[in-house]
Amino acid sequence: MLIRLGYDISFETATDVTMVALLNVHPSRTSDLREPDIMRIEPNVQMDQYRDSFDNICSRFVAPAGTIRLFNSTLVQDTGQPDAQNPEARQIPVNDLPTDTLRYLLASRYCEVDLLSSVVYEVFGNVPAGWQRVQAICTWVHDKVTFGYPFARSTRTALDVYTERMGVCRDFQHLAITFCRCLNIPARYASGYLGDIGVPAAPCPMDFSAWFEAYLEDRWWTFDARHNVPRQGRVLMAVGRDAADVAITTSFGSAKLTNFTVISDEVNGSQAVEAF
Amino acid sequence: MLIRLGYDISFETATDVTMVALLNVHPSRTSDLREPDIMRIEPNVQMDQYRDSFDNICSRFVAPAGTIRLFNSTLVQDTGQPDAQNPEARQIPVNDLPTDTLRYLLASRYCEVDLLSSVVYEVFGNVPAGWQRVQAICTWVHDKVTFGYPFARSTRTALDVYTERMGVCRDFQHLAITFCRCLNIPARYASGYLGDIGVPAAPCPMDFSAWFEAYLEDRWWTFDARHNVPRQGRVLMAVGRDAADVAITTSFGSAKLTNFTVISDEVNGSQAVEAF
Amino acid sequence: MLIRLGYDISFETATDVTMVALLNVHPSRTSDLREPDIMRIEPNVQMDQYRDSFDNICSRFVAPAGTIRLFNSTLVQDTGQPDAQNPEARQIPVNDLPTDTLRYLLASRYCEVDLLSSVVYEVFGNVPAGWQRVQAICTWVHDKVTFGYPFARSTRTALDVYTERMGVCRDFQHLAITFCRCLNIPARYASGYLGDIGVPAAPCPMDFSAWFEAYLEDRWWTFDARHNVPRQGRVLMAVGRDAADVAITTSFGSAKLTNFTVISDEVNGSQAVEAF
Amino acid sequence: MLIRLGYDISFETATDVTMVALLNVHPSRTSDLREPDIMRIEPNVQMDQYRDSFDNICSRFVAPAGTIRLFNSTLVQDTGQPDAQNPEARQIPVNDLPTDTLRYLLASRYCEVDLLSSVVYEVFGNVPAGWQRVQAICTWVHDKVTFGYPFARSTRTALDVYTERMGVCRDFQHLAITFCRCLNIPARYASGYLGDIGVPAAPCPMDFSAWFEAYLEDRWWTFDARHNVPRQGRVLMAVGRDAADVAITTSFGSAKLTNFTVISDEVNGSQAVEAF
Repeated sequence: MLIRLGYDISFETATDVTMVALLNVHPSRTSDLREPDIMRIEPNVQMDQYRDSFDNICSRFVAPAGTIRLFNSTLVQDTGQPDAQNPEARQIPVNDLPTDTLRYLLASRYCEVDLLSSVVYEVFGNVPAGWQRVQAICTWVHDKVTFGYPFARSTRTALDVYTERMGVCRDFQHLAITFCRCLNIPARYASGYLGDIGVPAAPCPMDFSAWFEAYLEDRWWTFDARHNVPRQGRVLMAVGRDAADVAITTSFGSAKLTNFTVISDEVNGSQAVEAF
Repeated sequence: MLIRLGYDISFETATDVTMVALLNVHPSRTSDLREPDIMRIEPNVQMDQYRDSFDNICSRFVAPAGTIRLFNSTLVQDTGQPDAQNPEARQIPVNDLPTDTLRYLLASRYCEVDLLSSVVYEVFGNVPAGWQRVQAICTWVHDKVTFGYPFARSTRTALDVYTERMGVCRDFQHLAITFCRCLNIPARYASGYLGDIGVPAAPCPMDFSAWFEAYLEDRWWTFDARHNVPRQGRVLMAVGRDAADVAITTSFGSAKLTNFTVISDEVNGSQAVEAF
Repeated sequence: MLIRLGYDISFETATDVTMVALLNVHPSRTSDLREPDIMRIEPNVQMDQYRDSFDNICSRFVAPAGTIRLFNSTLVQDTGQPDAQNPEARQIPVNDLPTDTLRYLLASRYCEVDLLSSVVYEVFGNVPAGWQRVQAICTWVHDKVTFGYPFARSTRTALDVYTERMGVCRDFQHLAITFCRCLNIPARYASGYLGDIGVPAAPCPMDFSAWFEAYLEDRWWTFDARHNVPRQGRVLMAVGRDAADVAITTSFGSAKLTNFTVISDEVNGSQAVEAF
Repeated sequence: MLIRLGYDISFETATDVTMVALLNVHPSRTSDLREPDIMRIEPNVQMDQYRDSFDNICSRFVAPAGTIRLFNSTLVQDTGQPDAQNPEARQIPVNDLPTDTLRYLLASRYCEVDLLSSVVYEVFGNVPAGWQRVQAICTWVHDKVTFGYPFARSTRTALDVYTERMGVCRDFQHLAITFCRCLNIPARYASGYLGDIGVPAAPCPMDFSAWFEAYLEDRWWTFDARHNVPRQGRVLMAVGRDAADVAITTSFGSAKLTNFTVISDEVNGSQAVEAF
């Protein structure tokens, strides 16, 4: 399956503002790209690209006072398979975890592991360890939290989600991630494209999406406490400890979002190559 | 100057508990070591050592049910100079910062950059950028927050320090770090040894200490909002975004601290070499 | 001036739900009523009316499963004068305050006096006591906080307003009230009707409004940190320590608001009496 | 049984500071007093006494710069019976509750009813309503929260207790009160004397104590989530929505506590009358 990916985002700023964008497809998917994946900027300011400590591709540039537009279109090959499932995947004792997974056990800005540890044992203490436990967490969060765009709030933490029981994508994942970490399961936040491929009726305008990954058995597995069903066509952009690490754009100064369009559509062969 | 460093720490656990300890001298000081720096464990369990994403030396092991003792003694060469001062050091625009400093601008568990950004401009908006601004932050925090061991609380965030105006070492640094980041100055948490060298009357029992580093001009500089005077004899152990990253020990299970001794003393030549 | 007041509010409930409504004009305005002020309920369930500890008129009833409608229309005589101003009004020492004002110095659900006391002295310490200080608080809150209906959130406290700098009517008042109390000025939350009388362009759909009262010299004075200009035509419904005390309706069970209309219009003589 | 009650409390202040003390025995116990209950102040400043909205006896005075001492000794008759138990006491539907109990269903400074409502149904939803449910709440809080004087913190709310699982008397009661209110059971905070009468080994230095009252069937009943066993010899001083309402002393300015002694001892006849 080929998926057409793209975004078109504009900001207005009153002064020069440095920005960092995490808008590239993640290096783990580079080999699937069928067109270049190069963020274009109008006006054509200089951009410097680097990898952060999570190996995400980051683009830094100065938005000059006025309007800046970030846009791109690319094409990615996808298996078309839904998220892999492995109910047999075991929880790995902390002592045997790969050392680079250990950072995903710690508390972070939106994931107060320390504050929810007592709670988590009361709620999930009786669920068998491993895949089942992560799945139980996703189902709990999915069932107990109400989704709604008006509930979006950039300061909401996992504890806030636990008490308020409302939120958007990221909030669902933050609570599930925190519960996993409390139970010594490495969990990390993921952002990327998630189209409505295979979904009968897509209820929402297209946006970037958030999900999370949990480390079980011998690898990271995709989970999604918001949708809580395997989905096709996820294309990863960035991973991190929580949304603070992988904001689509971070502005080091005041910037007003004035346009935001994302596309992620399955294409058939004849439409696959778009002129740049 | 030679400094004798050491610690002797015990825990009791009811079951096997995996622990990660950040008790080694930081790699940046390895060349100053005059004796080996090897954590000893009783009982003599297997330990595996690795570097985390901040390049800190981490030791992972399983504490068997019962008592576990972590201890060591080593010797380090130190210049004996107080913390370097450079009032001319300039603040670097975000666009020109080394990319590996950018992670220290983001919010973290104990440093809610998003929540204190408005406040910080009201308080420090008129202070000239660069060294002076970081120094003004340290002086403000030092003057406004009351130190007291009974105030220790592992869940206290920078915002809590700002409202409660009390705390221990780490709390002072968390607030100062957050203020720096709000002003686009990279700031990171540091833990290590800080003896009473050069201090007429040491008021406190010896403990590990926390300070912070701010990136100005072309390097990281040591600041300490708790003491707010240049000090001699700091020996760095670990850096991170905040105390969640560099806990001296992290226990993945219940563990009760039963002994905690730290030493950090200047030695004269004849005492310098201690038999292992 | 005669003001036509009215509301039409509907809820849907899945089961019988007890509700308390504070929808009457406050007893202090009873003598100004030119028509009866009796809440009507459809279906016509039994209602019991009482005064709470703030002397507000409260109506308690059971909403049967299904739809319930609360509505009324009444007419009130008003001086048409804008909120009284008295820049000479002095702050009264706590020891000389009437004892029934003292409860309005304490912390309450949305007004964490304890958490903002240090802050308030830093911000308002140099402003002369009395009317000027309350006015300075209103201007600060008005200027620093951004109004927006999408920012509405029932759990937001004064500290949240201070850090997030956004909110609706109630949030502005909660922060201003808390600042006043921190400075030992009794301040209480007020809810009522506030039409657009005398306002050239009314930007908002009509709603009930929130303002606050501060005790200075020898009485309570109306302040409004949201609008921060004297307004005509306020008609008080309820006072309390904060919005938790004077919710328009409190449901002791799940109830979904399905309609909410409020009117508050100046009428000329010929229109003044509306047939019931 | 006769109980000798007394306290001796000193503060130091740098300036004149107005204070309000709630140090009298509650009016509901006035008829049990066998000696006068008059707070004495050194120096002998003027004091004015009033009832607050909860009918507590409050004393207001100005502490002159320097040291102020509040002290008293009185004698009270007590039945010697442990706290009344009534496992048959029913929960009263909100619509049938006496109207003066309704204020004890609302959120207050330390009792965030709104934030814990979802949680409470998950934890106690299956426990039968009435006495059993309040008892289940007390047992849960008693078992899950660890008592310790070093954990005392004046800003800790019920939600904090729920996440931190540690605290002193007041914290236990705040969490239990909040749980009750979430379940539509009126609950109020109580402070008073609680000696070690009938307790084999009293673990703590004597202090004032906090407990709470829940309204069931036709009256207020004493519960104590801290001790969770019926106790003898409670002597009520004040009730309120939470500790913010019934602080032993509230200082409207800076005051340093320098002495704090409380006594509450059973006396036999010959010792009963103490010379004033």
